[in-house]
Amino acid sequence: MTRLLPVLILLAAGLARADEGMWTFNNFPSELVKARYGFAPSPEWLRKVRLSSARIAGGCSASFVSPTGLVMTNHHCVRECVQQLSTSQNDHIVKGFYASTAQQERQCPAMEINRLVEISDVTEQVTKATQGKEGAAFREAQRAELARLEKGCATAPDVRCDVVSLYQGGMYNLYKYQRFQDVRLVFAPEEAIAFFGGDPDNFEFPRYAYDVSFVRVYQDGKPAKVDDYLRWSARGAQAGELTFVSGHPGGTSRLLTQAQLLYQRDYALPERLFYLAQLRGLLDEFQQRGPELTRISNNLKFGVENAYKALVGQREALVDRDFFAKKVAEEQKLRDWVKADPERQKRYGQAWDNIAKSTDTLRDLRIRLRLLEQSAGTGSDLFGYARLLARSAEELPKPNEQRLEEYAEARKPELEQQLFSPAPVYPPLEQALLTFYLTKLREQLGPDDPVVKKVLGKQSPQALARKLVAGSKLASPQVRQQLYQGGPAAIRGAKDPMLELIRSLEDEARAVRKRYEEEVESVVDKNGELIARARFEAYGTSTYPDATFTLRLSFGQVKGYSEEGKTVEPFTFISGLYERATGEDPFRLPPSWLKAKPHLELQTPFNFVSSNDIIGGNSGSPLFNKEAEIVGIVFDGNIQSLGGEYGFDEAVNRTVSVHSQGILEGLRKVYDARRLLEELGQGGGG
Amino acid sequence: MTRLLPVLILLAAGLARADEGMWTFNNFPSELVKARYGFAPSPEWLRKVRLSSARIAGGCSASFVSPTGLVMTNHHCVRECVQQLSTSQNDHIVKGFYASTAQQERQCPAMEINRLVEISDVTEQVTKATQGKEGAAFREAQRAELARLEKGCATAPDVRCDVVSLYQGGMYNLYKYQRFQDVRLVFAPEEAIAFFGGDPDNFEFPRYAYDVSFVRVYQDGKPAKVDDYLRWSARGAQAGELTFVSGHPGGTSRLLTQAQLLYQRDYALPERLFYLAQLRGLLDEFQQRGPELTRISNNLKFGVENAYKALVGQREALVDRDFFAKKVAEEQKLRDWVKADPERQKRYGQAWDNIAKSTDTLRDLRIRLRLLEQSAGTGSDLFGYARLLARSAEELPKPNEQRLEEYAEARKPELEQQLFSPAPVYPPLEQALLTFYLTKLREQLGPDDPVVKKVLGKQSPQALARKLVAGSKLASPQVRQQLYQGGPAAIRGAKDPMLELIRSLEDEARAVRKRYEEEVESVVDKNGELIARARFEAYGTSTYPDATFTLRLSFGQVKGYSEEGKTVEPFTFISGLYERATGEDPFRLPPSWLKAKPHLELQTPFNFVSSNDIIGGNSGSPLFNKEAEIVGIVFDGNIQSLGGEYGFDEAVNRTVSVHSQGILEGLRKVYDARRLLEELGQGGGG
Repeated sequence: MTRLLPVLILLAAGLARADEGMWTFNNFPSELVKARYGFAPSPEWLRKVRLSSARIAGGCSASFVSPTGLVMTNHHCVRECVQQLSTSQNDHIVKGFYASTAQQERQCPAMEINRLVEISDVTEQVTKATQGKEGAAFREAQRAELARLEKGCATAPDVRCDVVSLYQGGMYNLYKYQRFQDVRLVFAPEEAIAFFGGDPDNFEFPRYAYDVSFVRVYQDGKPAKVDDYLRWSARGAQAGELTFVSGHPGGTSRLLTQAQLLYQRDYALPERLFYLAQLRGLLDEFQQRGPELTRISNNLKFGVENAYKALVGQREALVDRDFFAKKVAEEQKLRDWVKADPERQKRYGQAWDNIAKSTDTLRDLRIRLRLLEQSAGTGSDLFGYARLLARSAEELPKPNEQRLEEYAEARKPELEQQLFSPAPVYPPLEQALLTFYLTKLREQLGPDDPVVKKVLGKQSPQALARKLVAGSKLASPQVRQQLYQGGPAAIRGAKDPMLELIRSLEDEARAVRKRYEEEVESVVDKNGELIARARFEAYGTSTYPDATFTLRLSFGQVKGYSEEGKTVEPFTFISGLYERATGEDPFRLPPSWLKAKPHLELQTPFNFVSSNDIIGGNSGSPLFNKEAEIVGIVFDGNIQSLGGEYGFDEAVNRTVSVHSQGILEGLRKVYDARRLLEELGQGGGG
Repeated sequence: MTRLLPVLILLAAGLARADEGMWTFNNFPSELVKARYGFAPSPEWLRKVRLSSARIAGGCSASFVSPTGLVMTNHHCVRECVQQLSTSQNDHIVKGFYASTAQQERQCPAMEINRLVEISDVTEQVTKATQGKEGAAFREAQRAELARLEKGCATAPDVRCDVVSLYQGGMYNLYKYQRFQDVRLVFAPEEAIAFFGGDPDNFEFPRYAYDVSFVRVYQDGKPAKVDDYLRWSARGAQAGELTFVSGHPGGTSRLLTQAQLLYQRDYALPERLFYLAQLRGLLDEFQQRGPELTRISNNLKFGVENAYKALVGQREALVDRDFFAKKVAEEQKLRDWVKADPERQKRYGQAWDNIAKSTDTLRDLRIRLRLLEQSAGTGSDLFGYARLLARSAEELPKPNEQRLEEYAEARKPELEQQLFSPAPVYPPLEQALLTFYLTKLREQLGPDDPVVKKVLGKQSPQALARKLVAGSKLASPQVRQQLYQGGPAAIRGAKDPMLELIRSLEDEARAVRKRYEEEVESVVDKNGELIARARFEAYGTSTYPDATFTLRLSFGQVKGYSEEGKTVEPFTFISGLYERATGEDPFRLPPSWLKAKPHLELQTPFNFVSSNDIIGGNSGSPLFNKEAEIVGIVFDGNIQSLGGEYGFDEAVNRTVSVHSQGILEGLRKVYDARRLLEELGQGGGG
């Protein structure tokens, strides 16, 4: 009884209550859902939902919606593809895109879609491989075992396998995906309606956006056959209805230790925001130079603004003193429970301090790590291609288990798809991004740092950037392909200035990465595993792991919330869209919606909120009812959801979706998208 | 004995040790200096130094260096004037400026120089006026009393009087200045040498910058006669020598309470940095549009980059956990001392909590306060002029003591100088800044906020900015003068779109300012005063007050420091300048310095560091020896000095100056500035 007592006392704190949780499919709390909503998802139901779900490798979610490979996602999840398929003369971002015949569907230059076909537990293998090891040895053993497991699983190029660390290393699962690399655009509305309200309305509700698009996955040049897909609900989401979201939340930090949260609050988040803010100012002004520069930079600008607003919200959660105190108290409770038993203390007691020490190391490394490795190149395509090539030359000849993880055998299909992408490279944007990067490098490491001297010599960042952009041939996919196929000798021998830049950074970049992996990452993995075990011991596995851009299921219901004393109703209607339109960006309606107004049923629900627990990465997730019928598509969270990075507050945290009826109304009356409607089983309406 | 005991225990913590302190002239610790350096400044010495010191109203320091009104300061302190006197055809920022005859001296459009002629204590009057009052009543009584005192003192337009709150309201002094508004440029070097190393080298040491300039104050169209001024040292600063800095440190936050420091750490500093970072990105890209846009925005860019780097350093001091813990411990000690005596507890005990509550209010107000009042207009000149005019119309007709403080009778000379300034207004920069401002307004208040709707209507921020810049006549000083002289009726009747913008913001702006003044500022003043009294009671007045952009004297010595285990020597030499030059900005030498190289004594000291306690605002301060002879001019602090905002660390905090010998070597051999050298008593050398 004495051993059970603390467990019982703690149970309430550890249990996910309310609609909280981004649950894994192999540990879904069906009984909890039944208790709250009278419906317990069956294993069969879960299987069908899992196989109907899709992941877009760049960072989005999606769903299969027809037996012939049709996939529904957000407009902002295919935005990059739409831009890449556009030219200044024919801009599908502005005009939208609709393939009214199969022949008109157009391949996205670098899109990969995954479907999760199998989950297996490999915790034992992984922990056995690293047992008793620390630092570099731990890291190497772990990497080798992961590479081995993934390679063994990835038996064909269209099989993708990732070992996923869950509960901060408390559990390792092998996720086996079906991989689709031939993805073609079917339908995308005009951005003016997809992202109506723009940055000012982003993460806000009430909301009016038609953020939906369709693509199709192909196999051997033909539409892929799909057995499991989601059908359409007849009525769409209703107030109070139980709703599910199946998608790929990118990452949460709910299980971080206090030391890690402090690092987030004081270093990671503010510094990331400084960087984004400056890039944002740069892009705003870049766009003043003309419509073509606006066009080529809009995609990046959207990403930057979106991340900026999200991180502002996360930071605000962490500087909220009550919120932070709650996190501290939760940790203290578990630590006290560990301390109460000498055996437990011996097993787990040091874990928190070890992690704290590793965050001190991270603090010291962070600037070099960011500049030389994690954010090197500030998103310049040329920089990215050059680094992929230069590292391929070094990594691919090594035995699989000794490579940097992104060059492991199992990852080659993504690597090659990325490298050979025919997406256009925009020299003026490259010039701006590389100047920014090189200036930051000098600013933050100082002009006297040896690596800065090596890179810049006597040149200014701007002059060097100009030379790189003018001189590099890597904008051409053919050139990249030739070099890659020429192998290490060809790549090493190439005189391309972009490759030379990468080479002059390489020693330092690898050195700081190595220190990070050995002194931070492996310490966090090893000790995170210990804390996770302590947590299992105290609370059981009745909790969900932090999000890791792997498939999760969350449940909730359609309901409003209260904000500054006022009730926010759960639905908006098409009528409100027309009321909000001003005629000026970002509140400007495209001609199609202006023209269609007399024909639209204005009382059709357009956007709505539900209490599902989601986070960035869930964009494009289907929202469905207990019959697994689509009632909407997730495209955002409200501003209060941003603190969801660190904890879920059911009172105000809301998922924002386009209503299924609103989607259909638009497809029918604005776009007359008959082929698409028929495929969705919605033909003949109108 | 029991009452004395805690005082004695605490004394050590309260006493300024080492070279710490920005001391007021009426409370200078001569005995302490004597104990450390064997020299005790006499009242006569202090008087002479005070009268030889000057303040530049925009935020710099300076010194009188000749009997005919010659004033020495930094190049970056006159940079704005130099830019205003330049055109795209004749750019003195690039070419420098030297008046080789008196006739060539050129008036700065909007520069004011002050000399502190008298300090009197008005603590009793101010505290009596506010006794027993709180909130709005406190604020009104205080403002009325300040306006009364200042008006009574400012007996002529060339007398400026400011009541200064010291020790966070523990003491009020009336500072009476001689005011010079006719200031003419005499000498400014090329920016390439004045700011050699640019942003990368800013706040760094070793350093190589010739950041010195000369202006002259005029009275009735003639050079002003000055009795007290500083003479030149024969040898300049020597290693280990005792040095003094007399100048106007802009502000420190060393006496803030823990709640205020938390507000700084979590809100004020990061959010200010987000704003600066974005503005910085904008300006970087703005400058890519061509040399003329670079020229007109360089001054703002310098200010933004300088502030950004300074605030990064301040923030890093506050997120340093040991540093913060020390501040918390200091506060706790005083609070414990207060608590130990029921009488004291009754008098002072609530002060900290009251201030904490007011920072919560500030947190809630901060975004509106910034956008509508404190940073409204993002530095747009047109916005500034329009607000000055619109508020003049409302404020000037009121009785003096009821006006907003910056419209009080005693402030009219600055107001009018500002308003009638002939400095050019640059439309493209105005366009960029107003677009930025209006976009932020919509972003941070939200598109549905009534004031945003009132301001923007259905227009985009960019379109409105275009209309404002194209339509406003306020760029013309004549138009502004006419409106101002036409009085309230003329201003209210004007159809200028800039004035209309101000009017549509005005109610909300005044409302938030009022709440801030009544619920935050007056609470902080009132309770700050209590804490200050508790501190006096515990420690005596052997401390210095936080900096307030009023004249202070600091002492120290020429010495190096240790950084990451390496010794940093105190001096650099002219030879090092040539070694560091790359030929590319910001490490490009101007032609004059390239040409002069063979003639220069390369072993002349150029820049150096000393342990004087300074902060932003001290730029341009003279650095002098115990004979009150100039040995250098302060132009910066090292990176470790940035934490000086919150506390002084003698081990590493350093003032960075141009060496007096380096200044003379340049004047002689690079600029052949004979007239100037003669006036400095340095003629005939070379």
